[in-house]
Order: sequence, then C-alpha cells, then structure tokens
Amino acid sequence: MYTIGLDVGGTTVKAGLADDAGHLLRIASQPTPGEDLQDLLDTLQHLVSHLAQDDSVGAVGVGLPGLASSETGTIHTSPNIPCLEGSQIAPRLGSQTGLPVIVANDADMSAWGEFSAGAGVHTQHMVGLTLGTGVGSGLILNGQIYNGARGYAAEAGHIVVEPEGPPCSCGSRGCLEALASAKGIVSLARIQLSAEEAAPIPEPWSSESLCQAALDGHKGARAVFQQAGTYLGIACATLINLLNPEVIVIAGGVMTAGDLILKPAISEAKKRAFPVSFDSCRIVPAQLGNQAGTVGAALYARRVIQT
Amino acid sequence: MYTIGLDVGGTTVKAGLADDAGHLLRIASQPTPGEDLQDLLDTLQHLVSHLAQDDSVGAVGVGLPGLASSETGTIHTSPNIPCLEGSQIAPRLGSQTGLPVIVANDADMSAWGEFSAGAGVHTQHMVGLTLGTGVGSGLILNGQIYNGARGYAAEAGHIVVEPEGPPCSCGSRGCLEALASAKGIVSLARIQLSAEEAAPIPEPWSSESLCQAALDGHKGARAVFQQAGTYLGIACATLINLLNPEVIVIAGGVMTAGDLILKPAISEAKKRAFPVSFDSCRIVPAQLGNQAGTVGAALYARRVIQT
Repeated sequence: MYTIGLDVGGTTVKAGLADDAGHLLRIASQPTPGEDLQDLLDTLQHLVSHLAQDDSVGAVGVGLPGLASSETGTIHTSPNIPCLEGSQIAPRLGSQTGLPVIVANDADMSAWGEFSAGAGVHTQHMVGLTLGTGVGSGLILNGQIYNGARGYAAEAGHIVVEPEGPPCSCGSRGCLEALASAKGIVSLARIQLSAEEAAPIPEPWSSESLCQAALDGHKGARAVFQQAGTYLGIACATLINLLNPEVIVIAGGVMTAGDLILKPAISEAKKRAFPVSFDSCRIVPAQLGNQAGTVGAALYARRVIQT
Repeated sequence: MYTIGLDVGGTTVKAGLADDAGHLLRIASQPTPGEDLQDLLDTLQHLVSHLAQDDSVGAVGVGLPGLASSETGTIHTSPNIPCLEGSQIAPRLGSQTGLPVIVANDADMSAWGEFSAGAGVHTQHMVGLTLGTGVGSGLILNGQIYNGARGYAAEAGHIVVEPEGPPCSCGSRGCLEALASAKGIVSLARIQLSAEEAAPIPEPWSSESLCQAALDGHKGARAVFQQAGTYLGIACATLINLLNPEVIVIAGGVMTAGDLILKPAISEAKKRAFPVSFDSCRIVPAQLGNQAGTVGAALYARRVIQT
C-alpha cells in the first residue's frame, strides 16, 4: 500500500506517491489556484488520480499553510492562499477522491518528513525549522506532532530573539522570522552594512544574492549571515532549554549559506544553553530538501490511518 | 487513601498529607540537611512517619531541585543541595519508608499542584513559572508533565528575552531569570534607576524592599516592576507562540507585586503573540502559594501509582 502526500504552497502544490519508508515513487506538481477553493480541490484531486495510477493508495496527507484549529480542522488564517480561510479540506477532498484525507499544517508535515525519513530519524523529540520566505516550524515531542491547546503551537519563527529588533510580519518585533528568514536576511543586511560594504552587492538584494555574495567571500555579506546565525542560535538555546530536544533540523532556502549561518548558530546556542541539554541535542541541516513536506504528508497520513 | 508530598527546598523541606483533591490534612516542615545525603533521607523519612500517623498512605512524592535525568532518576546538578548530586533518592527512601516513592523536579511538582488543584485546573496545556530567587518552571502538555528527551526540559527561566541583557547564573545573558526573578529585579533596579530615583529606597535592596517601595507608590520602583513585567511578557509571547498553552500560571515571591508586574506582562504578550493563540491563553497568578510543591508532589505520586 502507498500513500500520497500533497504539499500546498503559496505558488505550487507538490505531490508525491510514497512507500512506507518515505521513498517517492512518482512526483508531480501544479500551480496553486489560490483564489477559488473548488479550483484548488480539483487540482488536488487531479494530482491524486495522476499519481495513483493503478497502484493501491491507502490515504492522502495534505500539508496546508496557515493556522488550523485542531478541534474543527478549520483553517483560520492563511495569508498566502486566501481561499483556504474558513475552509475544511478533509471531508471535501475525501469525497472527491474516495480516500481518507488527513489535513495538517505544512510546517508540521515538513518536520514529520525529516523526523520519519530524514535528519530526525531515530529520535523522539525534534524541532524542525524552515528558514524560507518566513520561518516555518514543527515540534515533535514524545514521538508525536505537538499542536498545543487549539492547534496553534509550534510557531518557533516567532520566538522573540531581539526585543527591539525589526518589525515582524506577525505584528511583533525581533522575532526569529524577522532576522533569519529570507526577508530577515535582507533587513539585517540593510541595517548592518555600511554604504561602502554594501556597494559591491548588486541591487535588488535578495536572500539568494546575499547568500551568493557571502559564498563568494564578500565580507559584509558574510557578517550578515553570521549575525542571522547568532540570532538563530539564540532561538535554538531557548528551544533547547525549554524543550530538551534531541535534534533541531534546519531547512529552507537560507540554509544554502550552509556553515556560514549554521556554525555561528551552533556556537551561540552552546554559549547560552544548559550544557547537559546542549550536549544531548544536535543542530543539523535538513536532508529531504523541498520534498520534506510531500514525504511528511504521505508518511503522516499512513501513520494516522494505521493508529 | 492519602499520599504525602515532600517539597525539598534549599533551606526547608515542606511536607503535607493530602487527599485525592489535594487538600492538605496535615503539614510539617524541617530544615534541609544539604551536606549529607543520609541526613536528608532521615529527615524525609521522619516527616513521612510524622505525617502518616495512623492514616493509610499510598505513596510519597518528592520534588527535588536540580536537573534530573528521566532515564536514570539521577540528579545531575543541584547547586543549592550539593549532597543530591549523583544521588538516587527513590529507591533509598522507598526502602526506608516501605512506601512507593516518586521523585520529580520541584518546579514540575509546583506546576503539577497548580494544574491539579490550583489555577490550572480544567486545562490540558499549562506553563507554570515561579519567579523566586531564580525562575522555576514546569510544562504540562497534553495533560502530562513534559520532560524532554533526557529530563532537562522546561527551563523557561532561561528563555532569552534580551540578548545583551545582564549575565545569568546559567552562563548566558538576558534570560528571563536574569530580569524577572528576585535577583533579576535587583539587577534591573541597579541598571534602571538614576541615583536620584534610587535614593529613597533604603539599601541593601532586595526584591522584597523594591516591591514594598513599588506598592507604596515609589515611581522608580514601579518602573522596575513594569520593565520586569515587560520581559515576562516577552517570555510569555514566546511560550504562547511556541506551545499554545491554555494558561500560564505565575507564582513566586516576585508576584507579591501583583498587577504591577502582571499587567505589563499581559499587555506585552498581547502585543507580541499571535492573536488566536493569545486569546486562547490566560496569564494568571498561582493559587496555592508556597504549598503548590507539596500538593503537586502528593497528587503526582497518586497519579503515578494509579496509572
């Protein structure tokens, strides 16, 4: 029996047919119809039929962006896919496909992918962080996705790491997301680089262009990733002291900078966390790249229908 | 059947005989023999016999300060009671008393007391914070004490709230403990008050004397608790965004300041946390005072032997 994972992003739906080890036998993708819910459901149904072919499919897992209530499954806020707000996907897609449909938060699904088949295997306590446009995160505590009282937990991107830091999209200031996401990297660069240091990096700046400059040895750009890494390390120290995880798995485009951001993060976390807790936690790059969400959704759906 | 709770503090062991609702029928206390483990065990045994009298006692719960490994029950670090380090209390006290002995972290036991019989009843997700000499904390997630991978979790006092803030006893800087514990209040006052503002508050300063000055209307002292409350609110925002608890229960001597610290904490958390998460979380004072640890240990021992 196979399961299908759907990772619904702001621009693209990624889909994959996975075996029980999380290997993807077939993958597909489609642009996300963000304006109309029925269009979105039809796209998901189409991807499911396309991937299933003649194989026996036991369930579909769907990772969706936004805060979903764990009581009702209703999506409360999903800024990037407005038609999801107030919707309940599981029953509708279930009746369209005739398969059990398990809906969860996309960041949780990425974390579950790394937990089940990536950098978090053989652990029971994992924090997943995705440094993308924003910062997504998932908590796996005692071997289970932790949702909190109402399903809103695991917003590790909104750990405050610099109380008077730059404004964050959430309304607060100095959140991890405001300082170590792709957007955060650009704002850090604007704050941190003098005109002279900034001059060699062609505008418009993006996290990618700054990362390339840093990898090419540009000193100012390196200092930006060093600073972002330091903030990431502060957040990791808070996570380690609070949750005593075995592993913090870091994914997302910003991690293209590799050790330029990871090394200062580990070094700062080591300075700040309790030594016994720090020593029992690895801080490592993710292994599944941009398929973590698909693999995670497929494996999570399998887990749910089997328990 | 009754159970006995022992709350082993740096200076005093508090003990109580509790019914299944956490009502204390008898209480007692003794100075803590911190230098010699056998003296400590004898004190605990004596308290147990003294409280049990002719009643049927089913179990003894012991809350101990320090980081305890959940795998082995061994206490790793206990700065205030050195003889506990490397010790295993449960089997020894068990054979001395002839009763099942359940050992846990003291901050977890205080949190469990509030969760079971205080400000956290009827919830499943609670954060307990005790603003005492340091900041103790306990996490109750999905109705269970959360210990993390190795038993070192729930150090919410060491959430970083001001990265370049004052040094913390843990080796980091700007932890919640360094800014909102009794010690933290005094360091904040030293940083924040000008000579003129400070003059009316008689030295030596303590959290108590600053609190009294604040309650008496001293403007500078009030500003100190306002600032400590703001940091407490930053930590609460991080806890709310990360864990989506139903309630954050705040105990400890610093809470004598009441609304002078609680109001700015709630207001800062509201500014920073996701509205849906903030709205599903109360931030409230503890209800059991200094008996939370005893009640919690007694009720926790009951829960462990019954499951």
